[in-house]
Order: sequence, then C-alpha cells, then structure tokens
Amino acid sequence: MNKKKFIAVIGGSQCSKEEAKLAEAVGHELARQGAILVCGGLGGVMEAACKGASSEGGITIGILPGDNRQAANPYVQIPIVTGISYARNVIVVKSAQAVIAIGGNYGTLSEISHALQSDIPVIGLNTWSLSRNNQQDSSIIPAQDPTEAVDKALNLATS
Amino acid sequence: MNKKKFIAVIGGSQCSKEEAKLAEAVGHELARQGAILVCGGLGGVMEAACKGASSEGGITIGILPGDNRQAANPYVQIPIVTGISYARNVIVVKSAQAVIAIGGNYGTLSEISHALQSDIPVIGLNTWSLSRNNQQDSSIIPAQDPTEAVDKALNLATS
Amino acid sequence: MNKKKFIAVIGGSQCSKEEAKLAEAVGHELARQGAILVCGGLGGVMEAACKGASSEGGITIGILPGDNRQAANPYVQIPIVTGISYARNVIVVKSAQAVIAIGGNYGTLSEISHALQSDIPVIGLNTWSLSRNNQQDSSIIPAQDPTEAVDKALNLATS
Amino acid sequence: MNKKKFIAVIGGSQCSKEEAKLAEAVGHELARQGAILVCGGLGGVMEAACKGASSEGGITIGILPGDNRQAANPYVQIPIVTGISYARNVIVVKSAQAVIAIGGNYGTLSEISHALQSDIPVIGLNTWSLSRNNQQDSSIIPAQDPTEAVDKALNLATS
Repeated sequence: MNKKKFIAVIGGSQCSKEEAKLAEAVGHELARQGAILVCGGLGGVMEAACKGASSEGGITIGILPGDNRQAANPYVQIPIVTGISYARNVIVVKSAQAVIAIGGNYGTLSEISHALQSDIPVIGLNTWSLSRNNQQDSSIIPAQDPTEAVDKALNLATS
Repeated sequence: MNKKKFIAVIGGSQCSKEEAKLAEAVGHELARQGAILVCGGLGGVMEAACKGASSEGGITIGILPGDNRQAANPYVQIPIVTGISYARNVIVVKSAQAVIAIGGNYGTLSEISHALQSDIPVIGLNTWSLSRNNQQDSSIIPAQDPTEAVDKALNLATS
Repeated sequence: MNKKKFIAVIGGSQCSKEEAKLAEAVGHELARQGAILVCGGLGGVMEAACKGASSEGGITIGILPGDNRQAANPYVQIPIVTGISYARNVIVVKSAQAVIAIGGNYGTLSEISHALQSDIPVIGLNTWSLSRNNQQDSSIIPAQDPTEAVDKALNLATS
Repeated sequence: MNKKKFIAVIGGSQCSKEEAKLAEAVGHELARQGAILVCGGLGGVMEAACKGASSEGGITIGILPGDNRQAANPYVQIPIVTGISYARNVIVVKSAQAVIAIGGNYGTLSEISHALQSDIPVIGLNTWSLSRNNQQDSSIIPAQDPTEAVDKALNLATS
C-alpha cells in the first residue's frame, strides 16, 4: 500500500485572490513534501491548490459532486465522479488523513464538521471559528501561513 | 400533495436533560401546530423531539444512518433506512423546509452547514454560533424558547 | 414503534398502460392490507402505485433523487429529499421490508440488485429475469397478478 | 487534464480462481495500455485486478464502502474512503469511462445496472446476462478473453 499521505484542501469554489494565493502555496508545499492532494475538484481554492501541487509534480484527486468528469478543474489528475451532489463533502474529508481549510463558505463548514466528527484533524487558514453555547470550540487548529499549515497537517496525518 | 410543513429537529444523539426538555417541547409544539417532524431517528435530542410529537399525535420521520430499522428510537413512525452513515445528515435537512437545532455536536454542525448551504432556514436553541475570519455570521436565527423556535420555523418554511 | 409493514414498489418513471394498471392495483391492495408504500417518488409506476394507495387512504413515501420536493408525484404524502441522484435507489429498497418490481429499466434493475444484496425479498411482475454464467438465477419471486404480489410481499416482510 | 482513460473492473469480493486469473490479466493489460484502474478497493476480483495492474506499474484507485482506508487491498494506491456502504457502487462506475464485469454477485449486478443507466459501456467476462419480459437484453457486451475485454473497453471509453 501507498505510504504517501493524503491531505484534503477545502475552501470555496469562488475565493478571494488572497485565498487563492494561500491555496496555491499549500498545494505546492504538499507536493514538495510528497503528499497527495484531495479536494472537491472544482474551482476557487480547490483549483488553486491543485495548480500549486501540479507545478511541483504532485498528485491531485478531485471528488466531484456531479456526473461530469469535465467539471473538474484543469489541474485534477484523478477525477472521482460521485453524482451525489454535496453529500460528497463527507467523502472529501474521509479520504484524507488531515484537512486544511482555507476561507470557505457553508459547504466548507460542512466539511470541517464532518472531519471533526470523524476525528480527522483540521488545520485552519483564515477560516471559520466555532463556539457552542457561547464557549469557544478550539478544535480547528490555527496556522499562520501555508508552510505551517502543511507541516501541522502532515504531522497529524497518522491514521 | 400534502400541504403539511416538514420541520427537522437536529441535535446530539446524547444530550443534557435540559436539551431533552427543550426538544420534547419543540416536538410537542410542532405536532400541535400540524407540522411533520423530520429527524435523524436516533436517541438524545431526536428521541425527545419524537416523544413530544407523538404525545400530541404528530407524525415523526427518522432518517437513519445505518442498515437497521430497529435502531430507530421508539417514537419514530416512519423509519427511512439509508445505510449511508453520516452522509445521511444532508438528507435530514433537505427533507425539511426549516430546521431547529438544539445543542449538538459536530454532526449537528454539519447539518446546520448543509441547511445554510441549501438556503434552508435554521433556528437555534442553545446551539453553535459561527464566525468567519473573525466576523460574526448571523445566519442561525436565535430563539429564546421552544414555542418561539417553532413559530419562527413554521413562518420561514415556505419553499 | 409502528408495526405497519413498509413495502417498496419499483419500476420505470415512464411505463406502459398495462404496467400503470398493475402498479395502481398493487398500491391499492397494499393500502387495503394496511401497508405503507415506499417508492422513488416520481412518475410512471411510482405515481400509479401512489395513486392506488391514496385512493384507499394509504400512506405513501417518495424518496426523491433531486433537491426539489415539488418533483414528487401528486400522490406522495411524505417526500424525502435526498439530493444524491440515483444513489438514492439503495435507500428506496433498504427502507422497505419487501420489494415489488413492475416492469422497469436499468434503474429498477439496480434496485432489484441492491435489495437482493441486502437479503430483502423481491417479488416480480413482468420484470427483469437474471442469469449468471448461463445459469438461471431464481431470486426474483414471480407473481401472476397484483394481489399475489402483495400477498407474497407481506408474507415475506418479516425483518 | 489527464488524458488517460479510467476503466472500472467490477466483480465479487470473493471469487473463483478462474475469475481471479481473468481479473489479474485484465488489470495487467489495462496498465500495459496506459489506463487507470478503478475498482471497489476490496478483495477477490478487485484485488486480483489491482495486482495485475500494479505488476505493470499501473495506477489503481479503490473506492471503499467503509470508513477505514486500511480495508483496501494491498495493491490499491489511491484509496477513496466513502463511508456510504454499497451506495458507493454508483461512484465506482461513474468514475469510469467503461466498465469490465468479471463474474460477480448482486453487488456487481447493481454496478452493471448503474453503469447502463448512465450510458457507460459494460463489457462482460463470464458475468450476468439479462432479460426483460422474456426478451434478451444485450446491453452487456461480451468478451471472450481479458485482452478482448480491455480492447473493447478502451475503444468505447470516449466520454
């Protein structure tokens, strides 16, 4: 079995320039350290991360919501065609040993939640923060920059 | 087609006594106002809500994660057996026209996220609160008590 | 817990007049005998079965592939909105204790297969027949008419 | 985007020696011709196909039903962890541009059905045959041996 680590990068299919820059750097660093990138296969943060990984020769997996493999962004090498719409979010995170969240909307929040429910570590870059009954929940591990996010993800990706 | 409204009640499969009390009151009030209760079919908040609805003659639907209809709590009248584990969370919220969240853990947070992603209104009772990039997200509509939660849910359940 | 039996009726979303007549009679007889009808919620065989059940005051559940509850046929009382497209076929059969197949195309065949894989009895009316390596597979239990189909389904719906 | 072709090999998680031999030869030939192998990731036909592909340096994707990546057979390089049980069957076939079925039980039949429903070509080696209302259905394209199966699959894998 492949001993490479599988790390998901999650975030909006539309994103700010700053988020795209972060995502591209995360993808690049993941590939440089030999990890395989898992994502939802679409645009925005997903595309930027795949672009970064591809530029370093890394492997990119895109777990698509729809029925059409052509919907994958051009840097996805392995499109997985689920056809189950946003129920595929849970597959994106379960297929990874750690998750890096960059920005993101409610879809990203659902992925963060599914990961935490499954005890898969989540590293956050400028993303959601949570509190419950007015108490801060500190399950999302903050990172200051892409390299720190990747280092933390790879260290925690043990299962 | 049935003109009754479908309202989901979401929360932990284990919960505090206070949460159970809130859930039972929500279920009771939903049934009293003629709504159909949708939930994940298991214990805790789900069971308390179903118990409350049943005591008032209401209809209860439990969308189960596993393969076994016997896993439904005793107050579920319509068990839906999905076998898709926590990917069923998205079905719980999509089958409702509004969602009432009571307490809850990461599974509940995934349901809240899926609902907001699908533009299904979410009413919160002592549940998660969200912020993004250090800005409060006020999409979860707060309620002070079960009756207010049910009234808001029914008013917003238009689609 | 409800002691009523849940029986799925499966078949094409487009069907012949003869198939519609069979499906309507099956739905009517299921309701007459107190069973709850589960189906995929759309047209054709599904609509005819729901129409038959409704005419006898029976309960009808439609497990929809898409995101829109309005896509349910007018005789569905309990629409379940899955949003997972044809992956919902497995939920249609798992939510039933026995399955009656009427005619049908490849979607129906996938439901027959998922039912047999899960040891859920399948009764067939003018539907698929199977062979494997040139040997007949007799897992689909034939019925001559709607009443026989319903009787066999209810007798076998024990789990 | 990757221009390699994605071909699914489906069949039982337990299989005869003859089926394993066929599957291994199919996997080997797929890799030799540069295709990427998609399968359900478990034992039997899936493992034999992955073994054959690996021996030729091919890429193997295993779309697992459960929550545990360790359940993948040792020749799976890219495990996709769905957690949605046999609802993952539809993802196995949708992620491929053509499907080769070898032997198989009802799970395999559900995959054949989902593929045909989605207009994905199915090539059969000693597998199911279908008839409907006593008329033969010839949608499964027969092959006499592994090389013919692979050639036909690659020729038909155009979408």
